[in-house]
Amino acid sequence: MGSVRNILFVMCDQLRADTLGCMGHPTIKTPYIDALARRGVRFTRAYCQAPVCGPSRMSFYTGRYMTSHGAHYNDVPLRADEWTMGDYLRPLGLRVGLVGKTHFAMDREGFARLGLDHQTPAGKLAAECGFEGWERDDGLHPDQAARRDLAYNVYLRAQGYEGDNPWHSAANSAAGPNGEVLSGWEMRHANLPARVDKAHSETAYMTDRAMAMIAALGDTPWLLHLSYIKPHWPYMAPAPYHALYQAADLPPANRSDAERAAPHPVVGAFMQHDESQAFARDEVRERVLPTYMGLVTEIDDHIGRLMRFLEQQGRLGDTLLVFTSDHGDYLGDHWLGEKELFHEESARIPLIIVDPDPAADSARGSECDALVESLDLIPTFLEVLGGNPEHQRLEGRSLLPFLHGASAAGWRDAAFSELDYAWRRARLILERTPSEARAVMIRTARWKYVSYDGFPPQLFDLEADLLEQQDLGQAPEHASLRAELEARIADWARHRKLRLTMSDDIIARRTDTARQRGILFGQW
Amino acid sequence: MGSVRNILFVMCDQLRADTLGCMGHPTIKTPYIDALARRGVRFTRAYCQAPVCGPSRMSFYTGRYMTSHGAHYNDVPLRADEWTMGDYLRPLGLRVGLVGKTHFAMDREGFARLGLDHQTPAGKLAAECGFEGWERDDGLHPDQAARRDLAYNVYLRAQGYEGDNPWHSAANSAAGPNGEVLSGWEMRHANLPARVDKAHSETAYMTDRAMAMIAALGDTPWLLHLSYIKPHWPYMAPAPYHALYQAADLPPANRSDAERAAPHPVVGAFMQHDESQAFARDEVRERVLPTYMGLVTEIDDHIGRLMRFLEQQGRLGDTLLVFTSDHGDYLGDHWLGEKELFHEESARIPLIIVDPDPAADSARGSECDALVESLDLIPTFLEVLGGNPEHQRLEGRSLLPFLHGASAAGWRDAAFSELDYAWRRARLILERTPSEARAVMIRTARWKYVSYDGFPPQLFDLEADLLEQQDLGQAPEHASLRAELEARIADWARHRKLRLTMSDDIIARRTDTARQRGILFGQW
Repeated sequence: MGSVRNILFVMCDQLRADTLGCMGHPTIKTPYIDALARRGVRFTRAYCQAPVCGPSRMSFYTGRYMTSHGAHYNDVPLRADEWTMGDYLRPLGLRVGLVGKTHFAMDREGFARLGLDHQTPAGKLAAECGFEGWERDDGLHPDQAARRDLAYNVYLRAQGYEGDNPWHSAANSAAGPNGEVLSGWEMRHANLPARVDKAHSETAYMTDRAMAMIAALGDTPWLLHLSYIKPHWPYMAPAPYHALYQAADLPPANRSDAERAAPHPVVGAFMQHDESQAFARDEVRERVLPTYMGLVTEIDDHIGRLMRFLEQQGRLGDTLLVFTSDHGDYLGDHWLGEKELFHEESARIPLIIVDPDPAADSARGSECDALVESLDLIPTFLEVLGGNPEHQRLEGRSLLPFLHGASAAGWRDAAFSELDYAWRRARLILERTPSEARAVMIRTARWKYVSYDGFPPQLFDLEADLLEQQDLGQAPEHASLRAELEARIADWARHRKLRLTMSDDIIARRTDTARQRGILFGQW
Repeated sequence: MGSVRNILFVMCDQLRADTLGCMGHPTIKTPYIDALARRGVRFTRAYCQAPVCGPSRMSFYTGRYMTSHGAHYNDVPLRADEWTMGDYLRPLGLRVGLVGKTHFAMDREGFARLGLDHQTPAGKLAAECGFEGWERDDGLHPDQAARRDLAYNVYLRAQGYEGDNPWHSAANSAAGPNGEVLSGWEMRHANLPARVDKAHSETAYMTDRAMAMIAALGDTPWLLHLSYIKPHWPYMAPAPYHALYQAADLPPANRSDAERAAPHPVVGAFMQHDESQAFARDEVRERVLPTYMGLVTEIDDHIGRLMRFLEQQGRLGDTLLVFTSDHGDYLGDHWLGEKELFHEESARIPLIIVDPDPAADSARGSECDALVESLDLIPTFLEVLGGNPEHQRLEGRSLLPFLHGASAAGWRDAAFSELDYAWRRARLILERTPSEARAVMIRTARWKYVSYDGFPPQLFDLEADLLEQQDLGQAPEHASLRAELEARIADWARHRKLRLTMSDDIIARRTDTARQRGILFGQW
């Protein structure tokens, strides 16, 4: 057992892995996050299990692949009997709390079928993705659905911001020349400052709430999932973050005429989405990306504030720190907006972990290029805290060896990610039924292969073509490689952890024991 | 809507598809079951989803493949939120009751996690596989675990049979020359009559109980799952059934020296099991099989009694009748005992369905060779009763077209079955971990292919070699066929119904609707 008692699990939403100073971005300023990287390990090949908020998060929270936990998209309820982070960590004595976004949807039908009372302690937890909801806020509150009594709205009004939904009118809108509200939902306003003071932004507020939880818990061990909505759209930042960066600070877009001329059918359908059409215009990138970067630097400032607070509280020495994101953001690369598909801009995630234990000293500041998946976090937490990282429901593996500068024998040689685009216009464009809109990505040390239902595959050579500009999905010389990767996906699909109610250990103890139990078959 | 209001769903345990007169057995007498076949449709290529009681039954009861419902073996709990037959049928107004065996194990851990009270009505049902337990009896009661207050034990004592466990000492044992109890657990006693009168046997008792439930429900619509333990071992029949058949009545064993000399590694390991070693001896077959056949004829007599009762109750005209089994029994064929593997003797099941509706008149007495799976039953029941046979959890398809003599457009061209032998000595012999002991069978119109984890496949040409004597799993000329069948299994594995909490219909309604909900991404 090391010195870790607490876990601060920070997630951003839609933060691209490459949009941090420590991950090689040429212009962005993220000094506090870079400082985390110097104190810990930076994973350069970490992938989310599905490049969409809901399913990606359910993989983080359950430790299982998308088609294992079954919540394939935003707002798809998680089955009532899927275990989540808290189910693993509470038995180890931690309070497991949430501040921010989970995108969890409760399985109301499943609860009703079981006659479950979600006012009981167990029911309340199961209804909140297994977290104590210190501050639950899924982050998007369009006027037509926003709650006036949303905690953040109440807070903003207490600070003097008016209206039913200051989340929109103050934190995610700018002021026009005549004082009119210019909505952040419209990207042409992204260069303007939000109508909220930086001290009252969503990022600031959630950081405040995280500190309040940490202070309130004192010496009780905890996991705090601090889950920022930003830099997710609406792309709107408070001053001065709206104006920190200019078009000249942007790396060039990763896109080519060839990509646009002959796209893969599914990619081509996604290129027809509004967000892709918008980000295909340089004007949009140049208006939005500086603000996207500003929102990241704003988060960075609050990470600095949070670290100072942890130090004051005496928690730096006994708290494991995780900094990550649920997925990336195309931001116009490959002529795409948003996420969902599997290019590095979308499927790769930032992941920095700081283990305060002296055993981790030799690895501080190192980078790790092992193929890592978001579902490795729960096993990591369990191993750090002395639990069982090999629980029969968990499909990942503990990262602790990497945190301690050791090698991990037999580490996976491929990472997987999944897509179900049933909910997107691309499906209608492609005339697929809701059950026919899936894809699986496998990423090995050198190759990325995407197997689509009903369409040809994609193949990229990430050694020769890290920008993924050359799709080898039809290249005759790679036919046997594609067959091999397809077989790897098949093997993976057949060996998911779906036998959840009995562990291998129990099976091993029961093997060939019928006779001892008096069940005497086959006896003459 | 047809005339069906009730469903009598009769299952035998370990009844081979070929051990019925109407299925071509040369000597057995099953006149009442044959009469059902004349009134309904006999399915000649019906397969169970796993040739082991527990997982096969959970597939019948959930309408899902073994690795979808996750209960891979006997006594593996079914996840608390898997739906079962009653969840689909109760909303249609049926009482859904059980008399006999389910082999269901409750997910106690899952229930505890949710804080579920299984004394509530919903909890009680979920704890009993969704059935009202009019008489639950899983059928095997070794002395060391038997309950004195088991209903059948109480009943037997009331009839004058003595002891704590007359299930064993009376119903499943014979009397020796000096009055000693000769246990039915030992197959050498199989030729002797059970110490129970035929009026008090398990089969007789469960039939009595079924009739009591039907009488008690009167005109309330019902599904009754009458689930006999026989002809499952202990192979012990009451007089006169113990002596109806002799060795001369047995078909020859389906086994060859070649099979024994060079078995597939997994089959070879199963051949080392006690039951296989025993049944490899002609003496054992000749002692056991006549009694096995007698137990089937005993069931047949009670099917006749039950049909007369239904007629008296006026229920023949509004009750759908299903007669099937959870799997077969090798009985020494292929040098194997028991079941689990995929030869026709094990994986194929008898299936006869009688639809009383006049729409079914043209199909009466017909045989159907479509590839049918046990998970087709729930969709059939739903269609017959006017429910939704395409519920997103259900992996089967309604058989109603076949019952009405129609063709079913686009019917499946392959059936699947699964094996997890983690619990068996074969795994230890083969030195596999509990997660490495799986296989999947695909059966097409012509071929049967079995894909094993860690071992070569098996392939049989069922047109040329219906007895499955010639394993083409290594035949060079079939390499591309094997690759094709392996790809079919991969496709099947990737497209299991695991997105359980949202239907395709809801997805279709929600597709591309973010804008209507005020979520305005990608807008300039």
